[in-house]
Amino acid sequence: MKKVKWGIIGIGWFGEYHGDGLAGLPNAEIHSLCTRNETRLAEVGAKFGVDRLYTDYEEMLADPDLDVVSITTMWDQHTAPTLAAINAGKHVFLEKPMASTVEDCHAIVDAANASDKFLMVGHIVRFNPRYAAAKREIEAGKIGKIVSIYARRNVPVSIGAAVLPKIGPIIGDGVHDTDIMLWYTGAEIVTAYAQTLNVHGHKYPDIGWTMYRFDTGAIGVCENIWCMPDHKGYFPDERMEIIGTEGGIYLQETYPALAVVNGDGSYTPDPTYWPEIRPGVRGGALAEELNYFLNCILENKPPAVITPEESLAAVTACLAAEKSAATDRTVRIDEMG
Amino acid sequence: MKKVKWGIIGIGWFGEYHGDGLAGLPNAEIHSLCTRNETRLAEVGAKFGVDRLYTDYEEMLADPDLDVVSITTMWDQHTAPTLAAINAGKHVFLEKPMASTVEDCHAIVDAANASDKFLMVGHIVRFNPRYAAAKREIEAGKIGKIVSIYARRNVPVSIGAAVLPKIGPIIGDGVHDTDIMLWYTGAEIVTAYAQTLNVHGHKYPDIGWTMYRFDTGAIGVCENIWCMPDHKGYFPDERMEIIGTEGGIYLQETYPALAVVNGDGSYTPDPTYWPEIRPGVRGGALAEELNYFLNCILENKPPAVITPEESLAAVTACLAAEKSAATDRTVRIDEMG
Amino acid sequence: MKKVKWGIIGIGWFGEYHGDGLAGLPNAEIHSLCTRNETRLAEVGAKFGVDRLYTDYEEMLADPDLDVVSITTMWDQHTAPTLAAINAGKHVFLEKPMASTVEDCHAIVDAANASDKFLMVGHIVRFNPRYAAAKREIEAGKIGKIVSIYARRNVPVSIGAAVLPKIGPIIGDGVHDTDIMLWYTGAEIVTAYAQTLNVHGHKYPDIGWTMYRFDTGAIGVCENIWCMPDHKGYFPDERMEIIGTEGGIYLQETYPALAVVNGDGSYTPDPTYWPEIRPGVRGGALAEELNYFLNCILENKPPAVITPEESLAAVTACLAAEKSAATDRTVRIDEMG
Amino acid sequence: MKKVKWGIIGIGWFGEYHGDGLAGLPNAEIHSLCTRNETRLAEVGAKFGVDRLYTDYEEMLADPDLDVVSITTMWDQHTAPTLAAINAGKHVFLEKPMASTVEDCHAIVDAANASDKFLMVGHIVRFNPRYAAAKREIEAGKIGKIVSIYARRNVPVSIGAAVLPKIGPIIGDGVHDTDIMLWYTGAEIVTAYAQTLNVHGHKYPDIGWTMYRFDTGAIGVCENIWCMPDHKGYFPDERMEIIGTEGGIYLQETYPALAVVNGDGSYTPDPTYWPEIRPGVRGGALAEELNYFLNCILENKPPAVITPEESLAAVTACLAAEKSAATDRTVRIDEMG
Repeated sequence: MKKVKWGIIGIGWFGEYHGDGLAGLPNAEIHSLCTRNETRLAEVGAKFGVDRLYTDYEEMLADPDLDVVSITTMWDQHTAPTLAAINAGKHVFLEKPMASTVEDCHAIVDAANASDKFLMVGHIVRFNPRYAAAKREIEAGKIGKIVSIYARRNVPVSIGAAVLPKIGPIIGDGVHDTDIMLWYTGAEIVTAYAQTLNVHGHKYPDIGWTMYRFDTGAIGVCENIWCMPDHKGYFPDERMEIIGTEGGIYLQETYPALAVVNGDGSYTPDPTYWPEIRPGVRGGALAEELNYFLNCILENKPPAVITPEESLAAVTACLAAEKSAATDRTVRIDEMG
Repeated sequence: MKKVKWGIIGIGWFGEYHGDGLAGLPNAEIHSLCTRNETRLAEVGAKFGVDRLYTDYEEMLADPDLDVVSITTMWDQHTAPTLAAINAGKHVFLEKPMASTVEDCHAIVDAANASDKFLMVGHIVRFNPRYAAAKREIEAGKIGKIVSIYARRNVPVSIGAAVLPKIGPIIGDGVHDTDIMLWYTGAEIVTAYAQTLNVHGHKYPDIGWTMYRFDTGAIGVCENIWCMPDHKGYFPDERMEIIGTEGGIYLQETYPALAVVNGDGSYTPDPTYWPEIRPGVRGGALAEELNYFLNCILENKPPAVITPEESLAAVTACLAAEKSAATDRTVRIDEMG
Repeated sequence: MKKVKWGIIGIGWFGEYHGDGLAGLPNAEIHSLCTRNETRLAEVGAKFGVDRLYTDYEEMLADPDLDVVSITTMWDQHTAPTLAAINAGKHVFLEKPMASTVEDCHAIVDAANASDKFLMVGHIVRFNPRYAAAKREIEAGKIGKIVSIYARRNVPVSIGAAVLPKIGPIIGDGVHDTDIMLWYTGAEIVTAYAQTLNVHGHKYPDIGWTMYRFDTGAIGVCENIWCMPDHKGYFPDERMEIIGTEGGIYLQETYPALAVVNGDGSYTPDPTYWPEIRPGVRGGALAEELNYFLNCILENKPPAVITPEESLAAVTACLAAEKSAATDRTVRIDEMG
Repeated sequence: MKKVKWGIIGIGWFGEYHGDGLAGLPNAEIHSLCTRNETRLAEVGAKFGVDRLYTDYEEMLADPDLDVVSITTMWDQHTAPTLAAINAGKHVFLEKPMASTVEDCHAIVDAANASDKFLMVGHIVRFNPRYAAAKREIEAGKIGKIVSIYARRNVPVSIGAAVLPKIGPIIGDGVHDTDIMLWYTGAEIVTAYAQTLNVHGHKYPDIGWTMYRFDTGAIGVCENIWCMPDHKGYFPDERMEIIGTEGGIYLQETYPALAVVNGDGSYTPDPTYWPEIRPGVRGGALAEELNYFLNCILENKPPAVITPEESLAAVTACLAAEKSAATDRTVRIDEMG
């Protein structure tokens, strides 16, 4: 069985999850790891039994055996390693959001298009079986033309506290739903209006509400609240409501789909995104998107589920929303460059 | 048992429902009816066994026996009969929205305040047991200070077709949730931003999405879509999500709370607002609010659940949202007069 | 306004709730109270401003002004005060279950039928607006002939601990759903099979599962678990699923209909059965059933929502289920006398 | 990439689905097909581009290149081809239920244990991500010791009409939940009591309700109704409620997890069991269980998710329930041989 050699650049919690996902794929081999934190590097290297450990990604990318890398660095440190990996002739699986500026996104898209290797951004929600099923229903014309979409993606205050010093909820989570709205409508966003509220005094505001207008006239609304109570019954609080001229679609991850209730309160263990299906192995949509990209490489077919241009469009819209919230006015997408 | 003598001005479907609600209240007597449509007047008079039938409300209001009137005329024809009834010394139960302009609302509030009789606007959602329970939890401090509220109130396309020639979804239905948001937050709305979409070419657009900013910083979002598919599983599609600094509250009327599924599809029979509990008698929140006002009259205590000023505030915010949608900019409430 | 004079015999928590319900009914007056516990009697008398306080119900019933009594004694002490009240010429509102033996139920039914006053057992679920709506749909033929019903009514372990020394879950809670099944089907139960499990070592087992066969062939299943975790997300966990030849009906009280989530976990404040709508006043189905009985008295019309014979039938079936669980065999209803 | 050669014996709709599942697995090759229906054989062979087509499975099994077979014949025709495949030295993926008699199950288990190849029965629900997540929570002790389980698995009348001439709902669908109950509790079933109702006059009754007692005292209840209305909002109507001494778990597949509402009513497109993720390719739990077995073969590790003995135990319990329904008495599992 041919094994594709996979490296990971950026070993925070999600870089490690990439490793946990790869660990369950028979055709993949975790080949090498890279992070500036040497202690972390040794620790995660030991966990995955990997001894090609780097603090400098240029050195790692110089290894001709390496086929593909995951880029799981901080969201505003995506561009340099991504361009380096493309230039080194590697396939790239890049975490969302593509980059932190529209300019950087363009640079990545251009580099990817000039390469004969593949680049795919990890828009994991497209690999959630329920969102994929909704896409098939929409494509089959079951709800007509989309006129309104509402999305919610809320997380507890303790997660907010960890993340809000680094990224805000609109670009951090709203990018998922913005991408899904673009995917479902097949339309372009014309304007963004947003409001934010800083409840806990972190660098970024805890709450972002965004209203998009699409070029078809459709309206899209994203709710992103990163300060839900920790004793939580209904998290991940992820919902979508898609209204078309002929019907609607409703999605939700939590109870009653799945809930555990006990002395600690109630919660929905993750069955969908990155469940630990056995010690050290994560399945779900994360494994699915990694496996999809793996098979694109093995069969030498470009990824069709999402293109770099689509990832760029989602970032552009979210940054327009951030700009709207900062300036208290509607922002046109074509202002964003 | 003393019976309060109650008249109804405006005998459309909802005027008749007022009658159906009064029919179940032992302490109320349907005393007189008024509408310009003589056929309708005779028909509804016969149904309720009422022979004091008027096409001119001034004549009706001249009857000294009459204690109280429901005003259930078209939303933009509320002001004249309401002022006339107040001037005639009657108690007034006025349907929502209070009036179609801020100016008219002020006139009604001023007249009500100058009268020794009572005026209450039928903000029926405050009498929905679940919304009332949520209010009690909020008052008890269970979710801390409110930072975000999302409301949905969507109805089928066939109802939209009947109503959209007369009124739009933001003032027509959003006024319910705007009022509830004001009630729950105890705050004032500072700005409104809204977008609308006209899907079916009626006088008013089918879809309205509104985003409010409150003076506490809280954000409120109303979804009002009047073109849901008629073969409907989840209507009335009425939901609210209230997020506070210490917790959240979730409300919903439909399945799984109640649903009937059969060869015609699935639907939620109304158990809450105006269910026909026996032939010709409606119970639920409609009977509850009428009964509440009735007891205010019997015990001579001013209505405390909602004041005329609160009804004015809800209309003002909705009209600001309508203005935003029409002008494509954020509208400040203090622009509205 | 005529006020009906109402007494309460048995002042446990639910006797007090009867008072809280009566407190919100303008046409009712809490006339007198009776309990053997003198401290409790004084305390609740003070709360309601009632000075006709009795430790002996015979003395209380001797007052010719008294119109009606609630009997809210322990479930196995219903018979004597009920028969005494009927014999004293009072209307009787008796709590469920009617009595603790089939024999006693027959005695009560016979006495009620011989009286010119009314007796109604407090089958409160019939006054839950959603169950009442379901009844109307069934009567209207919307789901055809009923072939299967599933009911769940589960409560937390702390409530179980308080109640299980006195009564078990099948007769204690299953009697609600047994009654509803009889009401909806219009059929008779032929056999009962049940299993119980004693988890916490109280006098009565915490868990009861019952399977009924109706004379129409329909199957009915009741789940009654009185040991749910106290940190609870989904209580009251009350559900019903009614399957007919042409459709089905689904009911549920809890989230998403209503939930509060905060640092203490999540819960559904009661909006339905006996919500405290203002300090010292309970509304909901409890006030509804008391008000219904009050109006039967005022208008001198016998209660039609439930008859004594129907209350007897529900108790008989539950006692058959209890007997089945005790003897580990199917029990025929006609064995029960 | 090594490809495992896979044959399919029995090409009804589910045999074809096995092919659709294998079509998405890069390491599998659909090697050969077998059915007695020659037209069907040619048609499905053409679909999958397979030219090793057989009407006699003995001939097919004689091919030494063939590694593994799916047995997807009628449920009461599982035994002979399964034993033949084992004897021919093939790995066997057998559809549920294992066989139609306890005796046949024992024969299969014995043959599998004597072989150095693997046999796994397709208990697909164990591969549903939500049920797998629940299993992990139970194993982690999150709900304590299980005391009660309720399962529902109901399907529309049109599916019932197609299937009820061949198999009944208890062994046909209840076997899924019986297996899950055994898996979750780790206990053995001691007795089964069941009732059935034949609504539409097919060979097998449409409705089966089963109550199990486990050797731990736990009670398990299965609802299997194969006559739900075709215009359906909530199908697959699949639910489970697992109550432990420390907590509970709730699962459900349908709305609000996912629903499409349009002019045809509302429905949940399958995102879980065998969604057609692209034309001719099925993913979901079906692909997952086939892929799992495939990797067991590739890595030469016996399947651990389910053993033949466990499949036998589920069939035995269901046949005890069928016997109870037929004889109107509780049946002990140890009566079943």
